[in-house]
Amino acid sequence: MRNRTVPTRLRLLDDGAAVEVELKGAPYRFHAIWLRDNAQDAATRSPTNGQRLITLLDIPGDTRIADAHWEGERLIVRFEPEAKVVDYDAAWLLAQAYDKPPPQQPGWTGQEIKRWDAGLSSALPAEDYHAVETDPVARLRWLNALRSYGFVRLTGAPTKPGVALAVAALFGYVRETNYGRDFDVRAAVNPSNLAYTNLGLQAHTDNPYRDPAPGLQILACLQNTVEGGESIVIDGFKAVERLQAQSPSGFQQLAQHCARFEYAGAADVRLRSKRPIIELGPDGELIAVRFNNRSAAAFMDIPFDDMAAYYTAYRRMAELIEDPALAVSFKLAPGEAFIVDNLRVLHARKPLTSQGARWLQGCYADKDGFLSTLAVLEERVGMG
Amino acid sequence: MRNRTVPTRLRLLDDGAAVEVELKGAPYRFHAIWLRDNAQDAATRSPTNGQRLITLLDIPGDTRIADAHWEGERLIVRFEPEAKVVDYDAAWLLAQAYDKPPPQQPGWTGQEIKRWDAGLSSALPAEDYHAVETDPVARLRWLNALRSYGFVRLTGAPTKPGVALAVAALFGYVRETNYGRDFDVRAAVNPSNLAYTNLGLQAHTDNPYRDPAPGLQILACLQNTVEGGESIVIDGFKAVERLQAQSPSGFQQLAQHCARFEYAGAADVRLRSKRPIIELGPDGELIAVRFNNRSAAAFMDIPFDDMAAYYTAYRRMAELIEDPALAVSFKLAPGEAFIVDNLRVLHARKPLTSQGARWLQGCYADKDGFLSTLAVLEERVGMG
Repeated sequence: MRNRTVPTRLRLLDDGAAVEVELKGAPYRFHAIWLRDNAQDAATRSPTNGQRLITLLDIPGDTRIADAHWEGERLIVRFEPEAKVVDYDAAWLLAQAYDKPPPQQPGWTGQEIKRWDAGLSSALPAEDYHAVETDPVARLRWLNALRSYGFVRLTGAPTKPGVALAVAALFGYVRETNYGRDFDVRAAVNPSNLAYTNLGLQAHTDNPYRDPAPGLQILACLQNTVEGGESIVIDGFKAVERLQAQSPSGFQQLAQHCARFEYAGAADVRLRSKRPIIELGPDGELIAVRFNNRSAAAFMDIPFDDMAAYYTAYRRMAELIEDPALAVSFKLAPGEAFIVDNLRVLHARKPLTSQGARWLQGCYADKDGFLSTLAVLEERVGMG
Repeated sequence: MRNRTVPTRLRLLDDGAAVEVELKGAPYRFHAIWLRDNAQDAATRSPTNGQRLITLLDIPGDTRIADAHWEGERLIVRFEPEAKVVDYDAAWLLAQAYDKPPPQQPGWTGQEIKRWDAGLSSALPAEDYHAVETDPVARLRWLNALRSYGFVRLTGAPTKPGVALAVAALFGYVRETNYGRDFDVRAAVNPSNLAYTNLGLQAHTDNPYRDPAPGLQILACLQNTVEGGESIVIDGFKAVERLQAQSPSGFQQLAQHCARFEYAGAADVRLRSKRPIIELGPDGELIAVRFNNRSAAAFMDIPFDDMAAYYTAYRRMAELIEDPALAVSFKLAPGEAFIVDNLRVLHARKPLTSQGARWLQGCYADKDGFLSTLAVLEERVGMG
């Protein structure tokens, strides 16, 4: 981010409503009101906790830049009518610059997201529990893989109850639900959820009937002596990319209309949501995928004239997530765990084909704590 | 929902790709694939937990209705090529009917949402803690008010530590964060958050720098001997309605572009989010408002050409939430608590103007558990 050539050139625009400066050889414009609102001085931002001490209404609506000039790598700006002088670091300005081309086509993701297919099988991201627990570099590598791929494995974990909670504590906070803080996944008679059977489960994201849906799911293995029951993971963002390439209109169908999901498998639970299968931000960023055949409710927010096309796209999406070319398969041994970004990566289970003991424990966690921990590690350790 | 005139009329459309039936005197069309996918028979849906036992790929892509007729209030449908016969209740069909006019203009909300202004002061929704704890009818009334208004009070609550957690346990699950499962709000020296000062706080939603942001916030009072420090709540959905009426383009600015929020007030926390101030679903439903001057970060996802108009709309929104015509004010006494829908209702605090003891405890909870409990109560108690 450091700029070897000290910036010098700038010009005021529109009577000081904005300023154009050169940063690393390229021109960027900044509005007076934006600069003033984002001043970092001690009267505007608390030096101790970084929170803004003023509101937008404390800033005059007719704020203008009366003067701006460079002093080394700092831009000195005088605002009127406040007669307030604030300075900005060139690197900070470049990092926050908003005078840039608009977002790409809908479905884009940031550079930190790496979409993957079956090829990931040869290099599944994994770290050792003890290393992650004790070594910040290993922890950073592990969490960075989770952000990039929406999936990461863990080996050498404890094989005792509470293991999923212990894994969550490595980076964040458990999301408690009606299933408890953590839950057991074992075959049961008259199960309240099909997960507690010997059946295979189609690839899915967990709990789309919940709003917000859990951002992360941890599954840890305590015992496994059965045949079958392999785990499969599929990058939902990759499936969306394929769908979009094959059928732009199908992609639009699943993004522009809400699906509905429901879970009412226990007497005291009626969980319902109305959310799209492909969720885009207002700027078209792909931010979530929800897919779950077991809990999909009757869709009733899709106009009659679109329903047939919607179902065609939904079927295409189902075919894509069953495509072996996208799937990564592995079998959990005791002491192994994995985490999925539950708003991106689908997981599946093959049927259990023999008697024996298969005992997993799982829990949910939200992404905010995970991403916060990752950001702190990046600051402290760097991307070594 | 019961239909007094037994339906009889129907006609197949497009070679059985859909059927048009008359329900309560009006025509509704249903696609063959939608009906088949939503069949409620025991081979399609688990009778015990309601989950779907098949995937969309188990249903032939060329599914057609070969025959459909009414038997009383049940529609009997035979699907080909499966030669499968399924029946549907007329009331169920009407409740799920999707052949209806498309959504209204952006910013719409469902009938269960009642927007409010300062006029709510004369009839603040409130219930007694003991009644809510012991009487399902009071609990239903209380939770229904929270859904309608995004705000509800509670009186007669315990005045001992853990009270916020006890309130959350009345309907759902606590969302644990870096602030803990619950947290104390008391004036502090060198606070990590401006909430822990004597300052007034502009109306805001909590933790917009978190994604997902907490859906509900509970604040309970254990002690209060200070002057000032009154609580204020404002219906963000009402403010959005005003903004939209005054400036449709300003509404669009805040809905179509993402803001950014950040909290880095403690050494081990770097929480960041990128979300719009006004969040709409893909069908234009108003689903969330995020507003917090203290934690708003530099906005960098708004094109240069829109930034001035964006700030104008942002300022108008700030003026609206400071408008006394929208604000409801009250002072918490020991044993009183309130809950806000934190994705809708903003809360503020007036400055503390005397020494004394003011001790609140707060916690967050997600909306899924709350809405599930409400739905269960509605089934059991009715809307008495």
